Amino acid sequence: MSLPNRVEALIEALRRLPGIGPKSAQRLAFHLLERDRDGARRLAEALREAVERVGHCARCRMLSDAETCAICSAADRDGSLLCVVETPLDLLSIELATGYRGRYFVLHGRLSPVDGLGPEELGFDRLIRRLEEGEVRELIVATGATVEGEATAHYLAELAAARGVRASRLAFGLPVGSDLDYVDRSTLAHAFQSRRPTGASQP
Amino acid sequence: MSLPNRVEALIEALRRLPGIGPKSAQRLAFHLLERDRDGARRLAEALREAVERVGHCARCRMLSDAETCAICSAADRDGSLLCVVETPLDLLSIELATGYRGRYFVLHGRLSPVDGLGPEELGFDRLIRRLEEGEVRELIVATGATVEGEATAHYLAELAAARGVRASRLAFGLPVGSDLDYVDRSTLAHAFQSRRPTGASQP
Repeated sequence: MSLPNRVEALIEALRRLPGIGPKSAQRLAFHLLERDRDGARRLAEALREAVERVGHCARCRMLSDAETCAICSAADRDGSLLCVVETPLDLLSIELATGYRGRYFVLHGRLSPVDGLGPEELGFDRLIRRLEEGEVRELIVATGATVEGEATAHYLAELAAARGVRASRLAFGLPVGSDLDYVDRSTLAHAFQSRRPTGASQP
Repeated sequence: MSLPNRVEALIEALRRLPGIGPKSAQRLAFHLLERDRDGARRLAEALREAVERVGHCARCRMLSDAETCAICSAADRDGSLLCVVETPLDLLSIELATGYRGRYFVLHGRLSPVDGLGPEELGFDRLIRRLEEGEVRELIVATGATVEGEATAHYLAELAAARGVRASRLAFGLPVGSDLDYVDRSTLAHAFQSRRPTGASQP
């Protein structure tokens, strides 16, 4: 082909993004080089900064550029409520959709043995320590309404029950089979509001 | 919001890409930070390299990381044929779709007074020098089948005629009103093959 190697390399790197096919990658590369070099520079710098500086909060595992994230450090958050989510994006959705003022715990996945995701990968040891510290009175399980999300919720409810902590689950109101971050705000707010107590024996 | 500033900055930089809305930008940012930091690093580097090192060929104005691009430097290209295209992507489409072995000239746009694109911005002075060098015998005008593309083609045909160079235009076979790089390969190959001579008086 008749493109400079560096342009080919850029197209290749863009193709690796989810949802970007070969034609889109080409158009993005040409757009950046022909019409928005400043935007390209800014994106490169933003990527470098984010990759180098953003890690995970030591308490809740949310993306954070400090040892402890803003929510875990905030004095005005209610430490008796702990909401467990699958992803940082789910946390964000709850923050945007609801008036929740408790704290979070991010699993970065859900129990899925075929994908090699077990209690260890999801940080359950750290979550158990949180429950054993005694501050948490309600564990709000906000995993997705998928089969794995439900299985994870069931497991977490058992963990909580064994430590005398009440567990609740977002109300079914979520479209079944969907991932949490696709839900519209008002449905999510509704489901969050009508969360119900759940025993270990309840799915 | 509860996101680290560096994550917000990354989402903002991604949103600036054409076709990427706020939700997509968020998903891309989280994908890169949660699942593909290596891809993010590679993309940052590819962007930096491309922006710093890729300029334009001094002869044909194609994207190039050398003073003169690969096609202009190639000894086995036919210097008597010069194909004028609007964008580097159009050049690429012709290379992929046809067996053309001549050279190119990239306008980086088309005559469009409302957008401030006149003969100067499109490099017509350099194109005229190419025509006056005497090597070019046919100017193949491969601007798009849009109103501005046609106006540009008309103007170029007049430039060529005034210098005794034959001008041809891609055959109408292109879907009218479309930009060149959306055309499927076989249609483009067909149109390229049946290009016809065009006088200054013919639209």
